[in-house]
Amino acid sequence: MKTYFDCIPCFIRQVLDSVRLTTDDQDVHIQVLRRALRLAADMDLTQSPPAMAQQIHRFIRELTANPDPYIEIKNRFNKIALEMYPDLIDLVDKSHNPLETAVRLAMAGNIIDFGVNSGLEEQHLKDAITESLDMELDTNALEDLKIAADQAETILYIADNAGEIVFDRILIEKLPTEKITCVVRGGPILNDATIEDAQIAGITDIAETIDNGSDAPGTILDTCSQDFRRRFSRADLIIAKGQGNYETLSDIDKDIFFILRAKCPVIAKHLDCRVGAMILSKTKTLDRIADLKEDNN
Amino acid sequence: MKTYFDCIPCFIRQVLDSVRLTTDDQDVHIQVLRRALRLAADMDLTQSPPAMAQQIHRFIRELTANPDPYIEIKNRFNKIALEMYPDLIDLVDKSHNPLETAVRLAMAGNIIDFGVNSGLEEQHLKDAITESLDMELDTNALEDLKIAADQAETILYIADNAGEIVFDRILIEKLPTEKITCVVRGGPILNDATIEDAQIAGITDIAETIDNGSDAPGTILDTCSQDFRRRFSRADLIIAKGQGNYETLSDIDKDIFFILRAKCPVIAKHLDCRVGAMILSKTKTLDRIADLKEDNN
Repeated sequence: MKTYFDCIPCFIRQVLDSVRLTTDDQDVHIQVLRRALRLAADMDLTQSPPAMAQQIHRFIRELTANPDPYIEIKNRFNKIALEMYPDLIDLVDKSHNPLETAVRLAMAGNIIDFGVNSGLEEQHLKDAITESLDMELDTNALEDLKIAADQAETILYIADNAGEIVFDRILIEKLPTEKITCVVRGGPILNDATIEDAQIAGITDIAETIDNGSDAPGTILDTCSQDFRRRFSRADLIIAKGQGNYETLSDIDKDIFFILRAKCPVIAKHLDCRVGAMILSKTKTLDRIADLKEDNN
Repeated sequence: MKTYFDCIPCFIRQVLDSVRLTTDDQDVHIQVLRRALRLAADMDLTQSPPAMAQQIHRFIRELTANPDPYIEIKNRFNKIALEMYPDLIDLVDKSHNPLETAVRLAMAGNIIDFGVNSGLEEQHLKDAITESLDMELDTNALEDLKIAADQAETILYIADNAGEIVFDRILIEKLPTEKITCVVRGGPILNDATIEDAQIAGITDIAETIDNGSDAPGTILDTCSQDFRRRFSRADLIIAKGQGNYETLSDIDKDIFFILRAKCPVIAKHLDCRVGAMILSKTKTLDRIADLKEDNN
């Protein structure tokens, strides 16, 4: 997905939120703000929004000499989510359709996005969980996800944020876990999940876990490691969580399911849904499943 | 008032709204956006927010070869307000305190600000009028305004926007009109009132009306004509409408009453009020009126 004009003011606001979370030093705030404005002024808008975020967060980390400004936030939401985990697993197992409930919870977990909302609190997550259980969900797409996961031999599950990754674990457990490799970011960027978060969430105990070699808040293939690109290209199916992965992968010619909450007007417009909607969307190449279902009827 | 960091993303959003109102040409949108980002990147933040807006709107007018992109909006809201005028005058004349009602309506009219809200519709104005009649108002400050206006020999009433200027006429009629000179912008900028709007509103028929020689959406004295600066310096009292005039004059050592709706969080914080509040605020030099009232008691 390209960067839309409306992404630009929002990007500048996000940068300001981020640098304020990182330091109270107003000299740093203005330096980062000016750098972000220059970056945006010169930006190639055919790039996805995470490309700009990748650049500016490198600068924030360099300027503050803080290699991981979101470490406390990541740890806090990992802890919150892990405390919820037993009850959530119980909820899933006792539900009429465990896969559906697990997908709903994975969508709820996607609220833990400090790029979009730097003021997120535990109560917002609790509200998102409650909402997610009743919200409209594309059950056709859910059926397609089940079929595609059953057919695939190798599945890459690209995680998004720390804390959220505990919710991803629940979904990974309700999918054919043995086929799944979980993918996290190659280094700290915003509150995105890295290998440490996958370990804390216990995903490394149940599935192979790799990082993509990149510090973008999404999956910009050009900036990922050769090893990840090879795995990506060979995988039969990709499940990608969150806006950043949607923004960077939605134009890729590959079997991909996107699971996210549409948290901004630009994404909502791109997905033809309302802001806040829970999205289970698939790339065009997966239309063959619908055709297959039709043939079977 | 200086430009706060939070003004920057909001400025970028406002620029995007403005250029979209002006033209559908996306090439122009991105050129203006990039110019605004560069301007903001290099900005002297000790300047007030209207200084940046003045620069970027010159660029929009130049690039679109349109000397007055807001002309239709200005005419539309002048017409809407003029149609309301007879009922509003009636309301004021029949009210318990005509000056207070006129001040309330002048505050309501300040909602017609296409810099802050490019999607304003007639209904928003009607709602603002209804609200303004009941909203909290600093009656002490109102008393001070009456005393200051009675004491002054020369008053400059600095108007803000087209449409709104009809509401200003109502207030000017309830103040000592013969002492008042109405001031409008020196040239088109956003939907700010120029001399044509003062004529349409009928202000030129009841009070001397001058322009300030500047195309800033506020009163940046350095960019105003020498004639206006002389008038400003000699006036006993200034009444300044709207955010732009507040942002540019709040630090000036002069007897000024500001009448506005606080339409953004930065202004609201600066004025220690909530967003949406109706403000009648005065500069420190006018504290002498409170002392005078105390002596009389």
